[in-house]
Amino acid sequence: MEKEYLYLEISRNLAHLIRQQALQPGDRLPSVRMLCREHGISMNTAKRVFLELEGQSLIESRPQSGYFVSHQRHRTLPLPEISRPAPAFSEEEPVPLINKVYSHMGQPDLDLTLFSIGVPSEALLPVARLNKEMIKAMRSLSGSGTAYEPLPGNEKMRRAVARRSYTWGGHLQPDDIITTAGGMNALSFCMMATTKPGDTIAVESPVYHGILQLARSLGLRVMELPTHPQTGVDITALEKAIPDIHCCLLVSNFNTPLGSCMPDSHKKAVVELLAQHHIPLIEDDLYGDLYFGSSRPKCCKAFDKTGTVLWCSAISKTLAPGYRVGWVAPGIYKEQVLKLKLVHAISSSAITQEVVAGFLESGRYENHLRNMRQTLQANCQHYMAAIAEYFPAGTKVSRPQGGLTLWVELPGINTTDLYNVAIRQKISIAPGRIFTLQNQFENCMRLCMGLPWSEELKRKLKQLGKLAGMLQ
Amino acid sequence: MEKEYLYLEISRNLAHLIRQQALQPGDRLPSVRMLCREHGISMNTAKRVFLELEGQSLIESRPQSGYFVSHQRHRTLPLPEISRPAPAFSEEEPVPLINKVYSHMGQPDLDLTLFSIGVPSEALLPVARLNKEMIKAMRSLSGSGTAYEPLPGNEKMRRAVARRSYTWGGHLQPDDIITTAGGMNALSFCMMATTKPGDTIAVESPVYHGILQLARSLGLRVMELPTHPQTGVDITALEKAIPDIHCCLLVSNFNTPLGSCMPDSHKKAVVELLAQHHIPLIEDDLYGDLYFGSSRPKCCKAFDKTGTVLWCSAISKTLAPGYRVGWVAPGIYKEQVLKLKLVHAISSSAITQEVVAGFLESGRYENHLRNMRQTLQANCQHYMAAIAEYFPAGTKVSRPQGGLTLWVELPGINTTDLYNVAIRQKISIAPGRIFTLQNQFENCMRLCMGLPWSEELKRKLKQLGKLAGMLQ
Repeated sequence: MEKEYLYLEISRNLAHLIRQQALQPGDRLPSVRMLCREHGISMNTAKRVFLELEGQSLIESRPQSGYFVSHQRHRTLPLPEISRPAPAFSEEEPVPLINKVYSHMGQPDLDLTLFSIGVPSEALLPVARLNKEMIKAMRSLSGSGTAYEPLPGNEKMRRAVARRSYTWGGHLQPDDIITTAGGMNALSFCMMATTKPGDTIAVESPVYHGILQLARSLGLRVMELPTHPQTGVDITALEKAIPDIHCCLLVSNFNTPLGSCMPDSHKKAVVELLAQHHIPLIEDDLYGDLYFGSSRPKCCKAFDKTGTVLWCSAISKTLAPGYRVGWVAPGIYKEQVLKLKLVHAISSSAITQEVVAGFLESGRYENHLRNMRQTLQANCQHYMAAIAEYFPAGTKVSRPQGGLTLWVELPGINTTDLYNVAIRQKISIAPGRIFTLQNQFENCMRLCMGLPWSEELKRKLKQLGKLAGMLQ
Repeated sequence: MEKEYLYLEISRNLAHLIRQQALQPGDRLPSVRMLCREHGISMNTAKRVFLELEGQSLIESRPQSGYFVSHQRHRTLPLPEISRPAPAFSEEEPVPLINKVYSHMGQPDLDLTLFSIGVPSEALLPVARLNKEMIKAMRSLSGSGTAYEPLPGNEKMRRAVARRSYTWGGHLQPDDIITTAGGMNALSFCMMATTKPGDTIAVESPVYHGILQLARSLGLRVMELPTHPQTGVDITALEKAIPDIHCCLLVSNFNTPLGSCMPDSHKKAVVELLAQHHIPLIEDDLYGDLYFGSSRPKCCKAFDKTGTVLWCSAISKTLAPGYRVGWVAPGIYKEQVLKLKLVHAISSSAITQEVVAGFLESGRYENHLRNMRQTLQANCQHYMAAIAEYFPAGTKVSRPQGGLTLWVELPGINTTDLYNVAIRQKISIAPGRIFTLQNQFENCMRLCMGLPWSEELKRKLKQLGKLAGMLQ
């Protein structure tokens, strides 16, 4: 049996014993060493078992003493309701608030706890291995990356992305893919390729503010659609909107901020519905590789028969946000996207594309993803436990099955006020208002789970919960 | 006396002797070694003297024998006339032609001679030193460049760009500058920040096709202005256009394809004229560092009193096209450009920004530029000599005082046809038609001087001249 399954199997057995109260609250668990001997496993595998159980709040560690069955397990908080944006257009961009939140990006010297920015922290990234790959790339790439790449992008990179497409039910060829300077750049080209100023684009609600701002900056009207915190966009609402929209953009898998993931049947239905009305679907699959379950969810692109799905992704949430490496499979919009790339960019950053291509080709990416998913899943459990324990009664929280962010709904607490209070205590959150152009989500916030878990981080969540309570 | 001036002084003296026929055609020049002894200079300085004279076609080297006074000097070909685009709008983008020309970019395996693409070849770039700087950057940059930079961009980079602004009469502060993913990305943000669809933008004619396509992709109308091959845009024509335009974009120094450079008095007049009418000026200063003369030309931004000049530049033509490192000092449009960067890109490529910042800070950039300018100036002389010798009678050619490209006007020869014939012989040129939206420049072409000079390259120019003659 593979190591990965072994640790899951052992932790599942222990979890069963705890839930059946064969192991009672306060009982001591076997030591790491004992677990190794008993099951003939390595220290690392044994540690993973405890990490998994700790993540589920079933056990807790006591310094110098070992692991014990938890006295109290965290309550499962209720889910937020399906969103109900007004079926009207709105243009109220919360620009000053967004600027405030993003003014702290990329400045580690400020020593802030950035729950606000949706990126994995350095501790979750394979920095040393990327650096080794960089040394190789300087050798393998003609001119060490000083020259422009071919217009569609680095060949090796496009091959690697095409090859990986089987993981989500795709069957792409390298020629189907154009590289871009990160995920937003891919979305930007796709919106420009499929719309003209004055057109209407349909999106989920809440939705990443960058998507709203991008659409507005291109002169588009935005139709925000009701979205379920687990299954994503409401298909009936989308159907009703069809006569009014020219384009649709969905973050199909573990979107931010909600963390919802469209079931396969929804994906298929949406693709067919839009194709039937000749409406292009821009699919943002930035988080698909970060699933907590046993297999990667499919993409809408897997159900695309007419070439009208523009599938976008990047390694910004899994490998290196600062590398600016993304791509798009634009289907029948390939010529338009190629032209836009030539006109707005000429070339992506050649050297970082080569680094990522090497990383993908070597198989190191899959190993890295496996570790990262475990960490994020454990973080998710830790966050939910802390929120259940420290946040005001009546708090609701999303239950993402993947991705990087949690969506928290606070009972009657204005999260823009919370932002202003918390930032003074060096805690930054993303207030709900930035994820919509309408007046909604004022009592919601997004928390990034990409920070390394620690007692310190737990204290920060406690502090945040206390501040929220004071604003009630 | 500094080394740089010493070699110029010596070569000027020798050139004088040759022109006065004190040294006759066929006479042997002193050897490198002798020159060193006579003037007490280093081998490198002596070699530079000969390179300079060779570039002026005054001397020629004979293998194993040394340098001799040339028997024939190249004729000075006449300049192309000032351009006369129609004072009307036009929208005829020569897209298929542009796509054809750019389909060969970044593919060294094709073994083409790329006179077409306006970039310095790898041989002119300090690849090894950039690689060393890359190793340093991986250490100095937090997370080795995996994290996003602060929104305005790498701090070190912005400091270095601000510090260098004195070279062109600027006095920028780091806070005035926003980094971008290359030069076109800077222009793209500036156009979006200063215009809305339906607006009219004034540009030089001929002008880099990327600028035309960018403007069209943003829904702008384009007004092409008469432009002199040496002094740039015709100010009277610009004055007349004022009532019809909302924005102006000028490549002030050694623009491509013409190579013109606006005199200081023109720059000042244009800035004042536009400011008076509250029309923003996007200044593309991509080539300013590549002057052949004794000092760097100023920028329009140096005369900007109202903050309405958006000064854009990059290292794509001097250091590493594939790095995608550019920047803009957007004056009063700073907030708009910052927002556009957040929305369309989030961050530039962090690691390549750090590499370039290190290179600029260390002073290596100035050394590299000095070498590169000499090489380009010598290339320019070689190209002009070859064109005078091998191209059909009646050919006219620009006389750039800097930059990367030559503009050639052929007598009654369609350069799109020439492109089609030459590409079969593995020579790629940029036909004049791609540098306009109107039906003009059909008998012109742009040649990139950024290829390393060699007998082989000379043969290619000879071949090209022959093909042109056959199409007459």
